[in-house]
Amino acid sequence: MFKKEVYVERRKKLQAEMNCGLVLLPANTESPMNYLANTYHFRQDSTFLYFFGLNLPNLVGVVDIDSGEELIYGNDINLDDIIWMGPQPKLTDTCANVGIAKTKPLASLDEAVKKAILESRQIHFLAPYRAERKLQLENLLGINHANIANYVSEELINAVVKLRSVKDDCEVIEMENTITNVTCKMYDAALKAITAGKYEREISGLMEGISMQHGGTVAYPVILSVNGETLHNHYHGNKMQNGDLLLIDAGAESTMSYATDITRTFPVSGKFTQKQREIYEIVLRAETECIEAMRPGVLNRDIHLKAAQIIATGLKEIGLMKGNVEEAVKAGAHAMFFPHGLGHMIGLDVHDMEDIGENYVGYNAETIRAEQFGLAYLRMGRRLEKGFVLTVEPGIYFIPALIDKWRADGKFMEYINYEKVDEYKDFGGIRIEDDVLVTEDGYRILGKNIPKTVEEIEAAMAR
Amino acid sequence: MFKKEVYVERRKKLQAEMNCGLVLLPANTESPMNYLANTYHFRQDSTFLYFFGLNLPNLVGVVDIDSGEELIYGNDINLDDIIWMGPQPKLTDTCANVGIAKTKPLASLDEAVKKAILESRQIHFLAPYRAERKLQLENLLGINHANIANYVSEELINAVVKLRSVKDDCEVIEMENTITNVTCKMYDAALKAITAGKYEREISGLMEGISMQHGGTVAYPVILSVNGETLHNHYHGNKMQNGDLLLIDAGAESTMSYATDITRTFPVSGKFTQKQREIYEIVLRAETECIEAMRPGVLNRDIHLKAAQIIATGLKEIGLMKGNVEEAVKAGAHAMFFPHGLGHMIGLDVHDMEDIGENYVGYNAETIRAEQFGLAYLRMGRRLEKGFVLTVEPGIYFIPALIDKWRADGKFMEYINYEKVDEYKDFGGIRIEDDVLVTEDGYRILGKNIPKTVEEIEAAMAR
Repeated sequence: MFKKEVYVERRKKLQAEMNCGLVLLPANTESPMNYLANTYHFRQDSTFLYFFGLNLPNLVGVVDIDSGEELIYGNDINLDDIIWMGPQPKLTDTCANVGIAKTKPLASLDEAVKKAILESRQIHFLAPYRAERKLQLENLLGINHANIANYVSEELINAVVKLRSVKDDCEVIEMENTITNVTCKMYDAALKAITAGKYEREISGLMEGISMQHGGTVAYPVILSVNGETLHNHYHGNKMQNGDLLLIDAGAESTMSYATDITRTFPVSGKFTQKQREIYEIVLRAETECIEAMRPGVLNRDIHLKAAQIIATGLKEIGLMKGNVEEAVKAGAHAMFFPHGLGHMIGLDVHDMEDIGENYVGYNAETIRAEQFGLAYLRMGRRLEKGFVLTVEPGIYFIPALIDKWRADGKFMEYINYEKVDEYKDFGGIRIEDDVLVTEDGYRILGKNIPKTVEEIEAAMAR
Repeated sequence: MFKKEVYVERRKKLQAEMNCGLVLLPANTESPMNYLANTYHFRQDSTFLYFFGLNLPNLVGVVDIDSGEELIYGNDINLDDIIWMGPQPKLTDTCANVGIAKTKPLASLDEAVKKAILESRQIHFLAPYRAERKLQLENLLGINHANIANYVSEELINAVVKLRSVKDDCEVIEMENTITNVTCKMYDAALKAITAGKYEREISGLMEGISMQHGGTVAYPVILSVNGETLHNHYHGNKMQNGDLLLIDAGAESTMSYATDITRTFPVSGKFTQKQREIYEIVLRAETECIEAMRPGVLNRDIHLKAAQIIATGLKEIGLMKGNVEEAVKAGAHAMFFPHGLGHMIGLDVHDMEDIGENYVGYNAETIRAEQFGLAYLRMGRRLEKGFVLTVEPGIYFIPALIDKWRADGKFMEYINYEKVDEYKDFGGIRIEDDVLVTEDGYRILGKNIPKTVEEIEAAMAR
C-alpha cells in the first residue's frame, strides 16, 4: 500500500466533497469458482482500495460526513483460521497503517446503518457490480436487490469520479513501473516466442505466467489472437501460421491492483507483408498523432475523431475508402474499420471506474455521448485534465460479418469501396495501444517502449 | 467435450434415479472482478458440465422426469456480439453435439417454471454457491434467496452424488492425461527453478503459466510456501532460503474442467537435512502405505486412521510423541501434527461435489462424520467403490499457534513431548499427495510419477 498520508488525504478530500450523511464503501468478498471455498484470486473493490488501501475481503469502510468519523467494520480471525491461513496481524494494526484509528466488528454495522436510517440520514453508496454486494446492500438497507440501483448516490459518484480521475504521482509511478518491469517483459517474452506452428495459448500462458511471477496477475483477460478483428477475443486455441497477424492486448495488474493496458500487433513470421505494412502504418500514424495531440483542455472526442480522420485518409489512399473524407467520418463510415472508441481512463481499473458509471467518468454536460455506431462506443469524450491517464488505442479491422451486413444494407456505398474490401476479408485486425499521462502542457507515454514501429518489431523478432 | 453418447447416457441415468418433477440445472454466469464487464476466467458449473458438457455461460438445462424431455434454455448472439466475440455456432448446433435436440430462449424459462409450480410439480435444484445463482433461483421460484437452501432437493443431491462419484473411463483418462501432460511439467519446471534467493511467487507464477500454456488454468489457488505449516497459504511473497522446505500443492485443471491435485515438499537447497529427512520419510510411508491399502469395500476413514497411526508411530520413534500410539490416535493427539483429513474425492471439482454438500459426498448412514479435532476435517469417510478417484495427502506440520495453545491448555501431555516439539517450531510442514483411482481389486496412482522419494527429489534438483 501507499503511505498512510495518501489515504488520510483522499478521505479528507472525500469529506470535503460531500455535504452530509454516511458514506458506505464495502470491500469485496471472495468470489467462488465451482464451490464456496474454491475461490478466484481475490480482487478488491477499487474504490475501497482507493480510500482505505486494504487488500482484504469482508470489510466495510464507513465515512461519517457529519461527525467526520472514519472507521472500518471487520473481524479478526480465530485460532481455527490461523491453522489454515497462518498468523495474521490484528485488524486494528492493519487499519492503523492507513490512518484508520477505529474498527468495529462486522456484525455491528447492521445496527449502525439501521440507526442512521431511523434518523433519516442519507446513506451514500455506489452501484453494486457483484451479486454478493447486492445481497449485502439489501440486508443492510432493507431495499430489494432489484431496486438498489435506484438508490445509488449521485453525490458520491461525482465525488469519487472527481477524485479518482486525477491520478496522484504515486499512482502514476505505480502504473509506469508495472509497465516497465512487468508488461514490457511479457511482450519481450512474446516477441521471442511467437513462431508459426505454436498455439496462441502458448503465448498467452507465457505472458500471464510472467505477470504472476511478479506477484500480480493480468488486469483483464488477455486478448491474443490471429483473429484480431474479433475485438474481445478470449479464445486462444488457434495455431499460428506464417502470414498471420497476431494481435495481443494484455497488461499486468500491479501488486497494488493498478492496471496497465498495452496492445501490439505482430506478424507471426517476423516480417510484415506489404499489405499488412500499409495498414499497420495507418494505425501507427493514428496512434502517434493522437498521442501528440493530448494536453489539458482538449476534448478526447476530438482526438477520437482525429484518429477516425487519419484512418479514413489512409484507407482512401490505398483504395478501401473513397469520397470526401471529412464527410465520411462525420457520417460514421470509417466505423466499419474502426468500430470502437479511441480509449478510456485507466487507473485502479483498466476501464477506470466503469462500475461507477461510464458516462459519469467520460462525459459531462458539455459532452453528451453520441449514438452513432462507433462513436457511441467511445468511453471517454470529455476534456482532458492534467493528471488523467488514458489509453490511446486506434485500430483497423476487417470484420466479415459487419462488412457483409453493411454491404447487404447498401450502407455508405459512397465512402466504402466494397469490391476492394473483399480482398481484405481474411486480413484480420491491427490495434496499437499505449497508456498516456496528461501533463501540464502535453503528455507522457508511460513506461519503457515496447517495440511499436515496423522496424522495431521486425528487429525484435529477427532470429 | 466428450462424445455425445456420454452425456445422453448420464441424463438417462439421472432420469432413472429420479421419481418425478422438473430438474433445473443452471450453467454459471460470468463472474465480475472489479466491474461487470471485466470478468474472471469463466468456470462452468460442474454438475451442468457433467450432464450437458457445454462450457458456455447463461444457459439452463432442464430435465423433465415425467415427460422425459431434456432441453437447454439459452440465447443466440446478435450482430453486435459478433463484432466483439466473433462468429459463434448456433445454440441448436452446439446443443446437438451433446444430444440435446430442443432449445428455447432463456426468457421463456420463467414461464415454464411458473407453470410447473402452478401444477404443483416438484422443482429439483441443488444448493447455490454463487450469489448470482441465488438471485436467479429467487426470481424463478419466488423463494427469497435467504431461504433457498431449505428447498434444495435431497433426491437430486443423492442422484447426482451417486452418478458423479463413480468416474467414467473417459473422465479418468482426462484426469490422468492432465497430470502427465501438464501437472508433471509444472513440477518439473519448479524442480529446476527452485533456488535460494528467489521469491515463492516466481515459482508459483511459473507453474500457473505452464497450466495456461496448455489451455487450462489451475484447479484451485496454488499453495506454495516455505511456511508449509499454514495449510491454505496463498501468500507467495517469501524469499526462499537454503534450509527451507518448500511445500507445493498445485494441480492443473484440464481444458474440460477436470481437476488434478498434487502436493510435493522440496528442500530449497536441493538436499534434505537429516531432521527434514526423518519427518519426510514418515509422511512418505504414510502416503505409500495408505495408497496400498485402497480397494473397494474399505472405509476411507480407516485409511485415514492408518495414516494417523503411521505418523504417530514415526513421531514416537524420533521422540516427538510418547506413550501408547493406539490410544494417542484414538484420543486425537496426533492431530496437532496432522490436523487435516487424508483426502477427498476429486473429479470435475478438486473437492468433488463440495458445492452439493460434503457430507452427502463423503459420508452416509454407516459413516457419520466425527466431531474430534482433526478427524472432523476428513471430507471422505465412507467405503471406497470401484471408479472413485481420491486424493491421498497425509502431512506433518509444526504450527506454532496450535502447539502453544495445546501446551498452555495442558492437552495430551501423556502423548506429546512438548520439550522436543520446541526444537521443531521453525520446521514448517511436509505434505505429499497423489490422485488415486480405486480399481476392481486395488488402486492405481494417476499419471506419470512426479519425484517423490528423497532420492528422486535430490536427483531431480541436482545441478
